[in-house]
Amino acid sequence: MTSLQQVIAHASSRNIGAELYDFAADLFPICRSITGNGLRQTLQAIGARIPLEIHEVPSGTPVFDWVVPKEWNIRDAYIADDQGRRIVDFRDSNLHVVNYSIPINARVSYAELKSHLHTIPEHPNWIPYRTSYYKEDWGFCLTHEQLQKLDPDGQYDVYIDSSLEEGALTYGECYLPGQSEHEILISSHCCHPSLANDNLSAISVATFLAEALARQNLRYSYRFVFAPGTIGAITWLARNKDAATRIRHGLVLSGVGSADKFHYKKSRRGNSEVDRAAAQILRHLSQAGSCLEFSPYGYDERQYCSPGFNLPVGCLMRSVWGTFPEYHTSADNLDFVHADDLAEAWCVCLGIFDVLENNCAYRNLNPFCEPQLGRRDLYGAQGGSHNIAEVIHARLWVLNFSDGNHSLLDIAERSGIAFPVIQATADLLVRKQLLVAVGEESLRREQSHASEAVLTFNTTSTFR
Amino acid sequence: MTSLQQVIAHASSRNIGAELYDFAADLFPICRSITGNGLRQTLQAIGARIPLEIHEVPSGTPVFDWVVPKEWNIRDAYIADDQGRRIVDFRDSNLHVVNYSIPINARVSYAELKSHLHTIPEHPNWIPYRTSYYKEDWGFCLTHEQLQKLDPDGQYDVYIDSSLEEGALTYGECYLPGQSEHEILISSHCCHPSLANDNLSAISVATFLAEALARQNLRYSYRFVFAPGTIGAITWLARNKDAATRIRHGLVLSGVGSADKFHYKKSRRGNSEVDRAAAQILRHLSQAGSCLEFSPYGYDERQYCSPGFNLPVGCLMRSVWGTFPEYHTSADNLDFVHADDLAEAWCVCLGIFDVLENNCAYRNLNPFCEPQLGRRDLYGAQGGSHNIAEVIHARLWVLNFSDGNHSLLDIAERSGIAFPVIQATADLLVRKQLLVAVGEESLRREQSHASEAVLTFNTTSTFR
Amino acid sequence: MTSLQQVIAHASSRNIGAELYDFAADLFPICRSITGNGLRQTLQAIGARIPLEIHEVPSGTPVFDWVVPKEWNIRDAYIADDQGRRIVDFRDSNLHVVNYSIPINARVSYAELKSHLHTIPEHPNWIPYRTSYYKEDWGFCLTHEQLQKLDPDGQYDVYIDSSLEEGALTYGECYLPGQSEHEILISSHCCHPSLANDNLSAISVATFLAEALARQNLRYSYRFVFAPGTIGAITWLARNKDAATRIRHGLVLSGVGSADKFHYKKSRRGNSEVDRAAAQILRHLSQAGSCLEFSPYGYDERQYCSPGFNLPVGCLMRSVWGTFPEYHTSADNLDFVHADDLAEAWCVCLGIFDVLENNCAYRNLNPFCEPQLGRRDLYGAQGGSHNIAEVIHARLWVLNFSDGNHSLLDIAERSGIAFPVIQATADLLVRKQLLVAVGEESLRREQSHASEAVLTFNTTSTFR
Repeated sequence: MTSLQQVIAHASSRNIGAELYDFAADLFPICRSITGNGLRQTLQAIGARIPLEIHEVPSGTPVFDWVVPKEWNIRDAYIADDQGRRIVDFRDSNLHVVNYSIPINARVSYAELKSHLHTIPEHPNWIPYRTSYYKEDWGFCLTHEQLQKLDPDGQYDVYIDSSLEEGALTYGECYLPGQSEHEILISSHCCHPSLANDNLSAISVATFLAEALARQNLRYSYRFVFAPGTIGAITWLARNKDAATRIRHGLVLSGVGSADKFHYKKSRRGNSEVDRAAAQILRHLSQAGSCLEFSPYGYDERQYCSPGFNLPVGCLMRSVWGTFPEYHTSADNLDFVHADDLAEAWCVCLGIFDVLENNCAYRNLNPFCEPQLGRRDLYGAQGGSHNIAEVIHARLWVLNFSDGNHSLLDIAERSGIAFPVIQATADLLVRKQLLVAVGEESLRREQSHASEAVLTFNTTSTFR
Repeated sequence: MTSLQQVIAHASSRNIGAELYDFAADLFPICRSITGNGLRQTLQAIGARIPLEIHEVPSGTPVFDWVVPKEWNIRDAYIADDQGRRIVDFRDSNLHVVNYSIPINARVSYAELKSHLHTIPEHPNWIPYRTSYYKEDWGFCLTHEQLQKLDPDGQYDVYIDSSLEEGALTYGECYLPGQSEHEILISSHCCHPSLANDNLSAISVATFLAEALARQNLRYSYRFVFAPGTIGAITWLARNKDAATRIRHGLVLSGVGSADKFHYKKSRRGNSEVDRAAAQILRHLSQAGSCLEFSPYGYDERQYCSPGFNLPVGCLMRSVWGTFPEYHTSADNLDFVHADDLAEAWCVCLGIFDVLENNCAYRNLNPFCEPQLGRRDLYGAQGGSHNIAEVIHARLWVLNFSDGNHSLLDIAERSGIAFPVIQATADLLVRKQLLVAVGEESLRREQSHASEAVLTFNTTSTFR
Repeated sequence: MTSLQQVIAHASSRNIGAELYDFAADLFPICRSITGNGLRQTLQAIGARIPLEIHEVPSGTPVFDWVVPKEWNIRDAYIADDQGRRIVDFRDSNLHVVNYSIPINARVSYAELKSHLHTIPEHPNWIPYRTSYYKEDWGFCLTHEQLQKLDPDGQYDVYIDSSLEEGALTYGECYLPGQSEHEILISSHCCHPSLANDNLSAISVATFLAEALARQNLRYSYRFVFAPGTIGAITWLARNKDAATRIRHGLVLSGVGSADKFHYKKSRRGNSEVDRAAAQILRHLSQAGSCLEFSPYGYDERQYCSPGFNLPVGCLMRSVWGTFPEYHTSADNLDFVHADDLAEAWCVCLGIFDVLENNCAYRNLNPFCEPQLGRRDLYGAQGGSHNIAEVIHARLWVLNFSDGNHSLLDIAERSGIAFPVIQATADLLVRKQLLVAVGEESLRREQSHASEAVLTFNTTSTFR
C-alpha cells in the first residue's frame, strides 16, 4: 500500500469528517470578501493548522489586465424602521449586505430603498448572496418575506458601517516540497462570506490535505493557494509566472461538501494526466462521479486554463456551480454540507494525488510469453480478501502492458481495474523481480538495459 | 453583422421565397435534357438574371472516359388510338416521352407498344421520368391508369417528332471574382424536364445566390456551374482542370425546395471545411438537419469527388434522391416545392458561405488570465435581445480559444454556440482591442508579434 | 470467385460438417494432457490426415521462464468402497481423475478422501475437469450425486495407476508453404481430455482447414500448431523465435463447435489486419458475431500477444471460455457440439483467410470522374441473382476508393458491402481494364505509372 493509500485507510479511524466539518463551522460566521479582515482572519485560521505564507498585495497593483482593488471592511449594517427597529441586520447574517457595499447612513424612502434590495421570490425565506466589487454601490439582501413586510409608504434608516480604502489583497500559500520541483497545485477560493459549500467545504478539505501531505515524503511538490476568486488567482499567477511553469497537475476545489455525486471538470487540454487521474478515481467510487468537458467559465480554472498558461488544472466539485437552488444563497449553510461528504472529498483528492504520485511505466523483464506465476506463488491471492480473479487478471494486465510505453494509469483505464489494485500489483511484481520501472532516461537511451533503468520523473507526455 | 448575414436578414422583407418559387415555375414547362434547346432556353433564363457565360461543347468531344453525346431535340409526341385520339400526349407533360427517344412514326400493336411503356403501378396516376441517353431507343411514360385503359387488341399510332444529331452540349457558368482566386463552387444539374424539386429548386436557389453574391465584396471567388447531370459535370471538369485546383469548397445543390429537413452529404474527404460549415449551419436550424457520410453515388459530387479530383465538395439537399415516392415522377411538380422551403435553402447556403467567408483564427492579446470584461462594458449584453449568458459565454469561449490554433468554426463546434454569435463576438473583441486575426504569414513567423498579424487567406488545414 | 470462396462453396456438397464431427468424435475418448501418450495419439490421428511434423521436447528443457514438465501417463484409476466396488472409475470418464495426478494406492478415510475430491454442487450430475500440472498431488472429480452417496464413516481404496517421469512434451506442426514466406498461424490447444467443444472442435476444424489449404496455391504460407495449452505454445515460441517474426496474421481457435454465435477476441494490437478481417466476416454472418477487446487472459493468444512478441494473433470462438456452465465439465461432450456449427466455423476461418489472401489496394486507371460504366456493360448485374443496386454500388465504391491508399478491406468496411462482393468487383474491374493492383514497389516509387504496377506482397501497414 502506498503512503497515500495508508493515509486514506487511516481516515475513518481518525474521524476526519468531523474535523473537516468543525473547521468549516468555525470559519462559517466570518464575513469574507475578496479583500479585508475577514479574509485575513480566515487565512490565519488556516495558518494555525498548516505552514501558510500570507501575502499582502497593495491596492492598485497591476495584475495582468486587472488592478488589485481597494480593501473593503465592514463592521455593522442594518435597515431600521421608523421606530429604530433593525428589520434587516448584518449581525443576523453577513449575506444581508451586498458584499463590497460602500458606507451609507441615510433615511430613504421605500422606493429608493427597494432599488438597493435583492431577494429570491422563488425561495421566500432565503437570502441571496450578491457582490458589487467593481462598481461602487450599496445594497442589502434579504428574504422575500422580509421584503413583503416593508411598508411602501415607510421611511427607512439604512446604515452600512463599511470602508473601501487603499489597503491590500491577501492570499495564503502553503508549499510542501517534494522530491521533484514539479508541482501539484490545489487552489480554493476563499472570498465568500457565510456560505458553507461554496467554499468553506473546499477550504477545509484543502487545509486538511496540506496537513496530511506535509507528513509524507512525496514525488511531487505541492502548492496550496487560498485566494479570493478570480482577482486572487489572477494576482497569484501574475506574481508567480515562474512557479506556474512548474505546475504539472492541478485541482481547483469547490463545493465539495454537499451530498451530490462528484463532478470533475476537465482542464482545457482535455486529456491531461490529472484529467485522467480524476476520471479514474471517480469511475471507481461507490457512486461513480461524472466528468465534464472544459468550458471557459466556472471557478479559477478559468485563469489557470487561460490560453497564455493553459495549465493542466481541472476543477473538482460535488455540486456544480449555478445548477442547484441553494447556490449563492443563505441555504448554502452548515446544514447543506456533511462530515461524510467532506471526508469523501478529502479521500478522493488523496486518491487522485496517489495516482499522480505513483503513475509510471514499467518494463516486463520476461516479455516473451507469460512468466510462470505459479512457481512464484502468484497464481492465487496473497493474504487478502480481494477478488482472486481480479488479482490474477491485474497481474496479467500489468505484465502484458508493461512494455515501457504504457503507464499504470493506461493499464488501469484499459483493464477497468482500479488504479490502487494495478499499482499494488506492479509493486508486487517488482518485488518478485518480474518488473522494473522505466524512467525518462532509459526511454530515451534505446540501448539501455531495463535493469539499469531508474525511476525518474515522468511527464505526462511520456505516457501517452 | 457580416455582409452575408445582412443579406440573410433582409431576405424576409424582400420575400425571396416568392421570387425563387416564381422563377422555378417559369422554368417548369420547358422540356430539358442533357443537350438541346430546352437546356439552352433554361440557361438563357438564368442568364437574364445573372452574368452567365454559356458554353457549347460539340457532340463527339472526348471528355475523360466519355464523349459528348449527340444533341437531342423534341417538338411533339403522342400515342394515338385507332380513331386518331391522342391518348398519351407530350403537350400534356414532357415526362410522357422517354428523354432522348429517337424519332418514330409507326402503327404498332399493343404488345409492341407495351414493351416501350413505363408506369408506376403503386402510384397509378403518376407519370414516371425515364431516360435513354446512351442506348438509342424510344419510349413513353404514362400513368398506370392510362395503361390499363389501352385495348390489348388495339393498334396504336406512335409518333415522336424528335431529332438526335450532331450538335452540342450546353452549360452555363457564372464567375464572381473575390479577393482571393480561391473558389467556392456551386453546381446544379439542369437536365431534368418538368420536375420541380429535382432540380428546378436548386437551379432557382443557385441563380438567386449568384445574384445576391454579385453585389458583395467577398473573400472567395464564387463559381456557379449550371450543367446537365453527370456528362455536364464531367465536361466542365474536363475543360477546367486548372480551375478545379482553385476550388477550396463546393456545394452540389439538389432537391432543396421540398418540405423535408435538410440533408448534407459530406465530401469524400469527410471532414473538409465545407463539411464542417454545413454541419454547423444545419445543427442550429430550428429543425436541425442531418449529415450523411460520403458515398460514391448521388449527384455530381460523384464527379467532383472522383479520386483524381477529390475536391472538398458536398451535396446539400432537403429530400434525398431515391428515398421519397415523388422522386423522378410527375408528382415532383410545383405543388411539391414551396416558397418558404426554397427561401430557407437560399439562407442555409448563404449561412454556409458566411462561415467559410469569416472563418479564421484569432489571437487573444491578453492571453494570461481573463481580461477584465467589466471595465470594457463586456460583462452584459450589448444593445440586444440576446441571451445574456450565451453572449458572455461566447466572449469567454472566443477569448480562451483564440490562441492562434483554433478557428472560429472550431470554437463554434466546441462551444455549441452558433457561428454567427461566435463571429460577432470575435468582431466585438477585435474592436475592443482584445483580439487580433491571425494570418498564415504570422502563423509561420514564430517571432512575429500578434499586433503585426494581418488577416490573409487561411486554408482549412491551418485550422485543423 | 477466389479459390478459397470456391472451397467454401463446395463445402455443403461435401458434407464437411459430418466429417468434422466424426473426427472430433473419434478423438473424444482419448485421455489427453499437456504431455503423454494421449496427446501423442491425438497428434498421430491428425497426422493421418495432414502433413504433420511431430516434435518431442524433453522434460527439463527450459522454455523462456518455464521448464518442460515431466511426462504424465495414466492407465487406470478408481475409488472403491469397502466391498471393492469401483464407485468412481476412470474407465467411465477420464475426467474422473485430476489431470496430472501422481500415482496412489491406499486405503483412506472419508475425511482424507474428501480433501481430494471435486464436484459441482450446482450441476449435481456433471463431473468437473481439474488439473494439477505444477503441484504434485492427486485427486478425483465426480458428480455431486456420487459424492453425496459416500459414507462419511467409510474407508475407501483409492488407486491411480499413473506415472510422472522424465519424458517429453509433444506437439505437432503442419507447414504449408505459399508464395510468400510470410505466415498465417493457426493454433489450437490439444491438451484437454474428453471435452468436445474445448477443444476437439478446434482441433478438428484446424485439421480440415489444413487439409483444404494444402490443395491451394496461396499467397501466404500457413502454419498450424497443435500443442498443449500454455506450456505448448510457450515451447513452440521458445523454439521458433525466427518463425514467429514471419507471422503476419494468426488465429487461436477454441470452442468453435457449440451453438453460440461467433466471438472474435482481438489481438493486443487491436486493429491488426486479422482483427479487421475477422470483424468483416463476422459482421456479414446471418447471425452476426461479436468482437471482444483484447485482454491478457484466455487461450494461447496470451503467449502470442505477450509484449515481447506482440503478434497480430486473435482468438476465434463460439462460446467464450468461462462464460457458459458446461465449460470445463463433463457436459462439454459430443452433444454440446454440432456438425453444422463446426462446418460454419470452418467456413468462417476460410472466409477470414480469403480476406487476408485477397486484400490489396488497387489504382483506378480513370481517376478523373467516373468511367462510363454503361458502354462497358457494367451498369447492370452480370449473369447473376445479386442485388443490382449493391453490385453497381460496389463498382462505384471500388472505383472511387481505389486511389492506391485504400485496400479492399478498407472499402468493404467503409461501404458496408461484404468483402467477397468487393473483391469480385475489383476482379471484374481489372478484367475491364479499369483497375490495376498496387504493390509495395509502385507505392514507393512516386513517379511510377499505374500501368507498370505489379501486385507484390502488401503488409498490413500498407493499407492503414
